[in-house]
Amino acid sequence: MSNRAFNFCAGPAALPEAVLQRAQAELLDWNGKGLSVMEMSHRSDDYTAIAVKAEQDLRDLLSVPANYKVLFLQGGASQQFAEIPLNLLPEGASADYIDTGIWSRKAVEEARRYGKVNIAASAKPYDYFAIPPQSEWQLDAKAAYVHYASNETIGGLEFNWIPETGDVPLVVDMSSDILSRPLDVSKFGLIYAGAQKNIGPSGLVVVVVREDLLGRARSVCPTMLDYKIAADNGSMYNTPATFSWYLSGLVFEWLKEQGGVAAMEQRNRAKKDRLYGFIDASGLYSNPITGEARSWMNVPFRLADERLDKDFLAGADARGLLNLKGHRSVGGMRASIYNALGLDAIEALVGYMAEFEKERG
Amino acid sequence: MSNRAFNFCAGPAALPEAVLQRAQAELLDWNGKGLSVMEMSHRSDDYTAIAVKAEQDLRDLLSVPANYKVLFLQGGASQQFAEIPLNLLPEGASADYIDTGIWSRKAVEEARRYGKVNIAASAKPYDYFAIPPQSEWQLDAKAAYVHYASNETIGGLEFNWIPETGDVPLVVDMSSDILSRPLDVSKFGLIYAGAQKNIGPSGLVVVVVREDLLGRARSVCPTMLDYKIAADNGSMYNTPATFSWYLSGLVFEWLKEQGGVAAMEQRNRAKKDRLYGFIDASGLYSNPITGEARSWMNVPFRLADERLDKDFLAGADARGLLNLKGHRSVGGMRASIYNALGLDAIEALVGYMAEFEKERG
Repeated sequence: MSNRAFNFCAGPAALPEAVLQRAQAELLDWNGKGLSVMEMSHRSDDYTAIAVKAEQDLRDLLSVPANYKVLFLQGGASQQFAEIPLNLLPEGASADYIDTGIWSRKAVEEARRYGKVNIAASAKPYDYFAIPPQSEWQLDAKAAYVHYASNETIGGLEFNWIPETGDVPLVVDMSSDILSRPLDVSKFGLIYAGAQKNIGPSGLVVVVVREDLLGRARSVCPTMLDYKIAADNGSMYNTPATFSWYLSGLVFEWLKEQGGVAAMEQRNRAKKDRLYGFIDASGLYSNPITGEARSWMNVPFRLADERLDKDFLAGADARGLLNLKGHRSVGGMRASIYNALGLDAIEALVGYMAEFEKERG
Repeated sequence: MSNRAFNFCAGPAALPEAVLQRAQAELLDWNGKGLSVMEMSHRSDDYTAIAVKAEQDLRDLLSVPANYKVLFLQGGASQQFAEIPLNLLPEGASADYIDTGIWSRKAVEEARRYGKVNIAASAKPYDYFAIPPQSEWQLDAKAAYVHYASNETIGGLEFNWIPETGDVPLVVDMSSDILSRPLDVSKFGLIYAGAQKNIGPSGLVVVVVREDLLGRARSVCPTMLDYKIAADNGSMYNTPATFSWYLSGLVFEWLKEQGGVAAMEQRNRAKKDRLYGFIDASGLYSNPITGEARSWMNVPFRLADERLDKDFLAGADARGLLNLKGHRSVGGMRASIYNALGLDAIEALVGYMAEFEKERG
């Protein structure tokens, strides 16, 4: 029997147990070579094979077209907030940003340091409970790019559609929903995702970028932040985060074994239907997000009486249902239910929520 | 019996076996909490305790004065090459750089993108086999800082003294020799070190910076590269490389158990004396570096007939003596003998070298 808890952390998040077991078995001696992956030169044949396979598996999972580069970088999504304008926003130009919550606004703040930002649409009039339809967006046909966050990890607001931006490159922060369902990569100029939710350990950020967008970095862009330099060097201009890259590769292998992103979509749909369904039917719990914009990955919810929050969390902890506390900026609860969590985790959570409601609701 | 090889890789480098064993034991279930360190929120109490202890242990090991911040960042030393001028070189100002090899020249190239660089001294006239004495340096009293690399990982050239720069802040790339012996941190304005040699896994860079140097970042400096932002947020402005930080903490614990950097100095002195002593006494092997500038950490050596290189490396591999091939830019051999390698590794290497010389020399 495993003594593993159900971990609803928003990130760094739960990893598949099978992946951790394999990493554990290989930790001191990878493939009988007498050393850990952590101890391999990133330029060795063994490590190169690990890195190349990880990239290929990710390409397979997302059907990444041949004219896109896949980069394994450092600094997380927050570093991308600067890296994107430094690479894609020419001096004096303007970019369109869509505001759907805390993370997309952080991207706006950083981009403003490098040029003009046009907030082409905002969820603010909807109290961040719904995503403004594209018919309401004020897109600039001359924008250098359009940026949005496909899933707001804190607010629990997710796009279930892809914006149409014509010839203007579409840039998306997909940190918390990449690989959760099939994706048409060809709609995007650039996709980026911090690893620590649906990919692997923190300290890694994956960037999928269309080749024609490379080679435009500003003169002030640090060499390490220049996408073209990274692409030309196979993400090894310097030593990459080798162990995180390897572990992400194990997650990609696991995803393929599970049936890929189509299978994940089925499983994630069942998970979110069960949890939102229970919340909507209950008298104690509520989630404010408009139906079609409800996140499949991050489910914030409140108790009707917030004085019960502490007991709710203590009881959850005691049952091995961890990290259900909402983000400090919004309070309440949040269950993050990424790929690594199965329906058993949802059943355990719903079971506890029902029991708590019966006793204290 | 362990089937671990002796790994002489320059980086990512060997880690102490005891550290890997502990990480392995804890990989799926840290302290009975039912989750991996990789799966912990970086803001949780458990992870905060891990992070704080790692910092404190590093402070203890290096006797870091209270007016210095210790930062755990991403992007490696190569990102620091930009981060340093972006934080410490005002527009229009000049910085002094010391050229002792490939890594210090890479730092120069990147700094030139942000301002004036004065090469105050170079090892070039010495064919990079010796370090120019400070009496020959042309320091600029108005320089924003003086930068040098205390150990050139590729050339095998190491400072065994600390430059005197008066009121001008001294900045050092200590990636490959930090923690190898005691250090007077108070002599420095800023010390940085990529983790993957003497600290932990790649994907982490440690920066020790004097507080009065914070808050000077240029307007174009990405938020994620601003030392003050990192310091004000305890290196958690965004999600840090949590697992690398944790594993580095295990290395710091291990170092303390071994007797700290004073014990490491003794051990490293014995290791390098044995290896250089053997090389100097042999008829087949040679190292070109002037005695007092020979690196304690990276020992490049050549065979008298380079046609023997391939057989030498194949025989070494067969005996579990891994990664002895020199850097592609210089050829020959290189034995990197960081803290994690004991005298037993040196004896195994010297034993093989003697045997090979007897048979083929």
